[in-house]
Amino acid sequence: MAEQHITSRAQDYAQWYQDVIAAAQLAEPAGVVRGCMVVRPHGWAIWEKIQAELDGRFKATGHQNAAFPLLIPLSFLQKEAEHAEGFAMECAVVTHAGLKSVDGKIQLKNELEEPCVVRPTSETIIGHFFAKWIDSYRDLPLLLNQWCSVMRWELRTRLFLRTAEFWWQEGHTAHSSHAEAVEEVHRMLDIYRDVYQNVLAIPVVRGMKTPNEKFAGALATYCVEALMQDGKALQGATSHDLGQNFGRAFNVTFQNKEGARDFVWQTSWGCTTRTIGALIMVHSDDNGLVLPPRVAPIHVAIVPIWKSDAEKSQVLEASQKIAAELREDGLVVKLDDRDAMRPGEKYYEWERKGVPLRLEVGPRDVASATAMAKSRISDSKEKLKVPFENIGVHVGAILDAIQKQLFARALAFREANTVKLDSWSDFESLFADQGSKYVYAHWDGTTATELAIKEATKATIRCIPLAGEGLDDGPGKCIKTGAPSRQRVLFAKNY
Amino acid sequence: MAEQHITSRAQDYAQWYQDVIAAAQLAEPAGVVRGCMVVRPHGWAIWEKIQAELDGRFKATGHQNAAFPLLIPLSFLQKEAEHAEGFAMECAVVTHAGLKSVDGKIQLKNELEEPCVVRPTSETIIGHFFAKWIDSYRDLPLLLNQWCSVMRWELRTRLFLRTAEFWWQEGHTAHSSHAEAVEEVHRMLDIYRDVYQNVLAIPVVRGMKTPNEKFAGALATYCVEALMQDGKALQGATSHDLGQNFGRAFNVTFQNKEGARDFVWQTSWGCTTRTIGALIMVHSDDNGLVLPPRVAPIHVAIVPIWKSDAEKSQVLEASQKIAAELREDGLVVKLDDRDAMRPGEKYYEWERKGVPLRLEVGPRDVASATAMAKSRISDSKEKLKVPFENIGVHVGAILDAIQKQLFARALAFREANTVKLDSWSDFESLFADQGSKYVYAHWDGTTATELAIKEATKATIRCIPLAGEGLDDGPGKCIKTGAPSRQRVLFAKNY
Repeated sequence: MAEQHITSRAQDYAQWYQDVIAAAQLAEPAGVVRGCMVVRPHGWAIWEKIQAELDGRFKATGHQNAAFPLLIPLSFLQKEAEHAEGFAMECAVVTHAGLKSVDGKIQLKNELEEPCVVRPTSETIIGHFFAKWIDSYRDLPLLLNQWCSVMRWELRTRLFLRTAEFWWQEGHTAHSSHAEAVEEVHRMLDIYRDVYQNVLAIPVVRGMKTPNEKFAGALATYCVEALMQDGKALQGATSHDLGQNFGRAFNVTFQNKEGARDFVWQTSWGCTTRTIGALIMVHSDDNGLVLPPRVAPIHVAIVPIWKSDAEKSQVLEASQKIAAELREDGLVVKLDDRDAMRPGEKYYEWERKGVPLRLEVGPRDVASATAMAKSRISDSKEKLKVPFENIGVHVGAILDAIQKQLFARALAFREANTVKLDSWSDFESLFADQGSKYVYAHWDGTTATELAIKEATKATIRCIPLAGEGLDDGPGKCIKTGAPSRQRVLFAKNY
Repeated sequence: MAEQHITSRAQDYAQWYQDVIAAAQLAEPAGVVRGCMVVRPHGWAIWEKIQAELDGRFKATGHQNAAFPLLIPLSFLQKEAEHAEGFAMECAVVTHAGLKSVDGKIQLKNELEEPCVVRPTSETIIGHFFAKWIDSYRDLPLLLNQWCSVMRWELRTRLFLRTAEFWWQEGHTAHSSHAEAVEEVHRMLDIYRDVYQNVLAIPVVRGMKTPNEKFAGALATYCVEALMQDGKALQGATSHDLGQNFGRAFNVTFQNKEGARDFVWQTSWGCTTRTIGALIMVHSDDNGLVLPPRVAPIHVAIVPIWKSDAEKSQVLEASQKIAAELREDGLVVKLDDRDAMRPGEKYYEWERKGVPLRLEVGPRDVASATAMAKSRISDSKEKLKVPFENIGVHVGAILDAIQKQLFARALAFREANTVKLDSWSDFESLFADQGSKYVYAHWDGTTATELAIKEATKATIRCIPLAGEGLDDGPGKCIKTGAPSRQRVLFAKNY
């Protein structure tokens, strides 16, 4: 494989993003299947880490995984009008089952009585089963989750951020009261924040989407929003209060404690492989991928350095001992003992792949019973001496520090790129050309103004921050129309 | 939910199978999407256990997970002629992207330039990417695996055993020599045997499929076969030697050490959710599901028993202590403290769900510091007294014993239902009506004879056992034609 050049962020941010993905072998466009991607092993290993962190938290809060059909009958999609409107236009449609060979050419065989769509999301089919499974308040709450891929035919695609097929989890729950459903919506939003901040080292703002940006079919959509290095925002995950909309559409009723029948209150919530896009755009640099230790598929790369055969056996022995000790601590260690490769090439490869810590072990290191440690995020060329004795403790401390540093760095970047604005001309000039930051400004609450602002600047309302989030300072006047505003909302260009 | 009646095996085996699944809430037919199923939480939790056992072994042998597109262009399917022949007829076909609303009715919008099929298996699309990623012997072996669902439109479906959509893992590897690929094929076959025997407690026979039964596009298919309680066999997993067939079809070449270009040697291997069907049919009984502890989502159900409030707080406190101690040992414990339910109903529920061990804790048990333990598979009504002190050790020992007992019971059943036959009339009468066992008999090696035997008896050749497996005693004469045979092969009716 040819070495992969990485364009600098300053030169071309979009190209840099693609180069980082290619250089780390995270994913690539499927090419032959329009808009789809292949997630390569290093990318999928990151997703598995994210999955494990989310799944553990879902289960700890009483959720169970299940699996629902990939295909959804067309008529299901139509049952909730707003939902159909929101998703129908981008569905892949299965019209036939089976193929036949006619004069050596393959042709379609049996047309389905009713076409099916490949699920773009599963509220409809799950609503159908909720109706079968739920009869009484004793069957509630019903707390399910599914890990799968979904399809939404997209015209303009970008690896991880927007592809026709993507991977995600979709939680679907049913409750006996709106209050309980709303509590669930916020419980899951907080789990997303926890994973973003404490695992992915990405600070997020929790907020509510505007009616214009909410999920098709929901009463309200909540989200966590993250800031990328180019000043654009990325929606990290969403949690929807579906009210009784799908309950009504699919006739999901229950007998309440008073003996009356009512529709259930539902929620849904999801987090997708675009999270990997966020990881890349928040932490990585011009040398390639940077990963927080808690989602790094490989924590430590050990590069033994030798010239003679005698040196080789000596440094390999020491390296193997270190690897064994670190593995006992639960770390994933790559001992890179490839013969036909120079140490510098190895450094370069593990750097591009985002391995948080590199340990170099040469003959002099063995003699002094220390390894040279290089953190992926240290700005200098400086290396740290780490003694072989209790090396697990030292390495653990370095990895913890990297995890904290990454969050602190991302938070500092966000603070430096967050402003309060009250003048429309300041707002316009900030978002001119490629400009974008987190801008807290007042908005009059109407979709018309929201769209006019987007039309003029390409900035969108990322969310209406929850109390205590963001930079709120009470009521004011809309930055565009001057009409009254209850609170500042968060604007940015977005992915 | 109404209580679910379970038909006895003697009365109607097929109905019993369905009843066990319904009573344990493992899965149900999707109904609205033809031939598909919904896997409910208790069923999916079993699959997650199986996944974890397999995935750990795949990774320990150097395999990495990745994710490939759900959709495969029709032209890809045609590139390997035998493969196309084998799969084309049962594919779901996506012909359109997007829907539009015309006079309030949803209609199909954009016809795709080339139809795609929902993957029935991924050799073709993965072959395409192997060609992009592999250039030299240094890129080999390439050892990938994918967890996903696949679709094969089936006319007659049965939960877990045969559904249009099912879940599986598909391993795909590329090697620089046939010998290395064959080694891989057997390595994976042995992993399947290990998981079947040591985790699922199901004895299996390893063997090779006949040319008539092999995977479409493979040189050879190997399998593990298991015997169900009705005497029929079930193919537990397969491992294919693909030779250079897909290498040629997708032009996957590499430069070998001598500098010449050659096609790679590939393997693929898979294990599906039908494994859950095997679990049910090997271990379960007329009271419902029976699960080996190593794949049981819940290991222990604790049922506290009380009359007065004073008793309640006393037994709950003791139960919670036991639960905490068992959880510390890594066991999953259900403390069933539901108020409005009699103990007997609770016993019945956990029994139907296959929980291996039940602990009952009443006031007298608390007084004597012992719990009453009831193994799911003990034949008598007898319960065992288990002291509170070191209860984790006692429970661990009981669960280990259950795991071993289940394997021993399944093995004894298989031995009692395995015969060597040399007379065609014996063979015919054994397989008459619903009859089936493992029958080791001679076969002349021709597809014509294999099909004639199937036509006459519905028995098929499950596999040509590997050396040391099954009941072989050297060469002989074909049970149907009298022509020479090198070894006995395994016959049975099958799922």
